[in-house]
Amino acid sequence: MSDTGSLEALIQALRRLPGVGVKSAQRMAYHLLQHDRSGAQLLSHALQQAVERVGHCERCHTFTERALCAICSDEQRDATRLCVVETPADQAAMERTGAFRGLYFVLMGRLSPLDGVGPRDIGLQQVLARAADGTVQEVILATSFTAEGEATAHALSQALQRRGVRVTRLARGVPVGSELEYVDLGTIAHALADRR
Amino acid sequence: MSDTGSLEALIQALRRLPGVGVKSAQRMAYHLLQHDRSGAQLLSHALQQAVERVGHCERCHTFTERALCAICSDEQRDATRLCVVETPADQAAMERTGAFRGLYFVLMGRLSPLDGVGPRDIGLQQVLARAADGTVQEVILATSFTAEGEATAHALSQALQRRGVRVTRLARGVPVGSELEYVDLGTIAHALADRR
Repeated sequence: MSDTGSLEALIQALRRLPGVGVKSAQRMAYHLLQHDRSGAQLLSHALQQAVERVGHCERCHTFTERALCAICSDEQRDATRLCVVETPADQAAMERTGAFRGLYFVLMGRLSPLDGVGPRDIGLQQVLARAADGTVQEVILATSFTAEGEATAHALSQALQRRGVRVTRLARGVPVGSELEYVDLGTIAHALADRR
Repeated sequence: MSDTGSLEALIQALRRLPGVGVKSAQRMAYHLLQHDRSGAQLLSHALQQAVERVGHCERCHTFTERALCAICSDEQRDATRLCVVETPADQAAMERTGAFRGLYFVLMGRLSPLDGVGPRDIGLQQVLARAADGTVQEVILATSFTAEGEATAHALSQALQRRGVRVTRLARGVPVGSELEYVDLGTIAHALADRR
């Protein structure tokens, strides 16, 4: 119907969001137009601002509005340790622990040949260049413990070790607070092998 | 972090969408900024356009960009039948059947006292006024067969019958194509009572 072109366009545009199908997009559009027009305007503005302002940190590739992100430009951080994570969310989780004072490299993805994500897309060369800058003494691989995360860690590890860089991986083991009975067998087996 | 203010603002704005929590909002924001900036701009523009252009039809309350929606301004429709539905999506479903040639009233909601949605919010007075315009001979209640939809139909039915308007309700029964074995008991009981 030509008298609802803007509504149809909005539904189509909402479908570009990950995990949003046609029914959800319709529900979102109806909700915004019926109950939350100020939310719609807020979202419109926020999208515009984010696209205009948010870029990538020159050093670690995370999202930032400056040339260097807050962590990379913090001179108090320990530049001898480089932690490699998949996403800004993973980086934020690591930061919340307060247990790491080094610098990061954010891959903004993980190796996934089936989805066409290769070494270049995750910035493998940049990781190697960072690791060889003369300051970094240890690269800590903190990619996910999923098949793709492990494959990414493996590829990075191989390439880094070939260049004589010290590479470590986050320990696999039983999560803090969990009862052994409910932990999956693969985790228990790894925790046993890596016992200390 | 002050260097990611636009990103934080975008995540907060995405949470205004129904069914989107903080994790989903984060994933959507990262996806748009990393893989689909043109999608973000498209969505921003579509939101702005929809908020500016889409209003409600004066007669039936559905979404439209004109004073009267395409159906209400179609003189070929049978103005003696008025079908009351909850949402534009329900109206669209009814239209797709091709079995109804009358006009609509779209409540844009349903009675839901717990959520603070009362008779005024669904335009009860307007339904009554439409039904009493001298043209409408039958009001067909096509609200959902849920507790709230039934309560809405009941309230409308009472008010309309008090004014001597002929009111009908969509038939309850076994869905076309379903095997009796898998149909819930309430539906079978209703189908039995309404047998013809």
